[in-house]
Amino acid sequence: MGLNVAVIGLGSMGYGMAQVILRAGHRVWGRDINREAEARFQASGGETDPLAEALLDSVVVVVLDAAQTRDVLFGPDGLAGRLRQGAVVLGCATVAPDFARETEARCEEAGVLYLDAPISGGSAKAASGDLSVMASGSPAARAAAGPVLEAVAETVFDLGESAGAGSAMKAVNQMLAGVHVAAMAEALTFGMTQGISPARFFEIIPRCAGTSWMIENRGPSMVAGDYTPLSRIDIWPKDLGIVLDIARSARFAAPVTAAALQQFLVAAAQGLGGENDTAVAKVYAQNAGLAVPGARDD
Amino acid sequence: MGLNVAVIGLGSMGYGMAQVILRAGHRVWGRDINREAEARFQASGGETDPLAEALLDSVVVVVLDAAQTRDVLFGPDGLAGRLRQGAVVLGCATVAPDFARETEARCEEAGVLYLDAPISGGSAKAASGDLSVMASGSPAARAAAGPVLEAVAETVFDLGESAGAGSAMKAVNQMLAGVHVAAMAEALTFGMTQGISPARFFEIIPRCAGTSWMIENRGPSMVAGDYTPLSRIDIWPKDLGIVLDIARSARFAAPVTAAALQQFLVAAAQGLGGENDTAVAKVYAQNAGLAVPGARDD
Repeated sequence: MGLNVAVIGLGSMGYGMAQVILRAGHRVWGRDINREAEARFQASGGETDPLAEALLDSVVVVVLDAAQTRDVLFGPDGLAGRLRQGAVVLGCATVAPDFARETEARCEEAGVLYLDAPISGGSAKAASGDLSVMASGSPAARAAAGPVLEAVAETVFDLGESAGAGSAMKAVNQMLAGVHVAAMAEALTFGMTQGISPARFFEIIPRCAGTSWMIENRGPSMVAGDYTPLSRIDIWPKDLGIVLDIARSARFAAPVTAAALQQFLVAAAQGLGGENDTAVAKVYAQNAGLAVPGARDD
Repeated sequence: MGLNVAVIGLGSMGYGMAQVILRAGHRVWGRDINREAEARFQASGGETDPLAEALLDSVVVVVLDAAQTRDVLFGPDGLAGRLRQGAVVLGCATVAPDFARETEARCEEAGVLYLDAPISGGSAKAASGDLSVMASGSPAARAAAGPVLEAVAETVFDLGESAGAGSAMKAVNQMLAGVHVAAMAEALTFGMTQGISPARFFEIIPRCAGTSWMIENRGPSMVAGDYTPLSRIDIWPKDLGIVLDIARSARFAAPVTAAALQQFLVAAAQGLGGENDTAVAKVYAQNAGLAVPGARDD
């Protein structure tokens, strides 16, 4: 029998996840500050009646960050206090491990299970139910979250029996992913100064030792000059900021990550925050007096 | 009929290349400052008689850098002046594009063809004849180098009809590869501060968006704590130095690459230059008071 599931946050990840949970046979309430996204999800088969918190089995929180997660669960209209005992909350935003542990403790006080469950894979894999989930939490939370994880994930990495480990693993992945996006932009534009076109770059590098998942994933849109946001520039000041906050707490020096963050901050400061993260190449291009594909002339 | 080929430099790349050229049916002279490597190559089928330069069809220069390439070709015992007219030199070291252009011009003066032919793929692919070659040079040089390229390469990228373009592409690849090695070390040790073991890191990251060719290639030896040099730490101060020299000439700011280079310089300064490049993780570990696998206790 299907469960009652709420998905909070219908952005590029949450919308796809809500859809695949729906297709797995559950009743799904989708909630977002964007009313259009809510209406679109309802039109595609989501529940239309107001949310009845006490009936929910699982709440999937796929919002931007820790502040939004806290607000959804413990704010003035917070869900945590109104869920039934034993319901499970899946925290999917990228947050600091300490925040995940704090959220687990507050959920426990409220009689609710919490799974630290950050996700990786991008919007295409969210839409096809093929995400990677870096999960940690109590066996009870893990078991209660099982049906939702089965719907949204190709792979669930079980990282430990308390919250925090999942978010730590996610931070490590984001550190690499963010550095790789910046390095791609740096190498692409450096190559342009040496007469290597973006098309040539993305033809050759994927077959050499310098390749990365990011290069293979972002290449086609970069060559086409398409900066439609799938993973926005704004993600990186946030996620690399979390990484470097954790690193600072641990007295860990991360100079490569720190350098990459600066480039995303420049991109954000230049008004590129809403573009795809590949737009960090525009920062390099502008610094060097180059034009990357799709850059405006103005 | 087989050609007469000299391979200058029987290191981790050159030795394998000399072997596959031999297996392709050519006569191969292998030369190295390391007499043991020469003797080993002779024992495996290489020519034993003294090198007769005037009989050579192709010379493959697989030495460390530009200075050694210059010495091999134009030094006191330089080959370039003693080769027959129309013989071809393949320059496989990672060098600046300007050096490749200068070498092409000097070879032309000597009546010798020159192919800018830096290589990528590592020692395993050198030994199996599956390298990527980033080639540029005159059609005559490209044609004359054909049989050697066929033996050593899985893929030849033809980048243009004069030297320099191949080396530019190689610099772009090294920029990425070097940054990815440093980023891997940074993320691996950062993860250790958060309780993520190296084994867990290399189990999970290859299946996430943060992966890279370097992570997939270097993972097993890092987990095993094996720093046997395949690609030495010392390569990176050299290659990233070339990258940043070219970038400076082009007035191109490359902050992520610059940060990565600093970490390799620290590793070299700490006496790790002869270890595998993964030993850059020891710099991070030492900074953070951690022990990576295989690190000595002293």
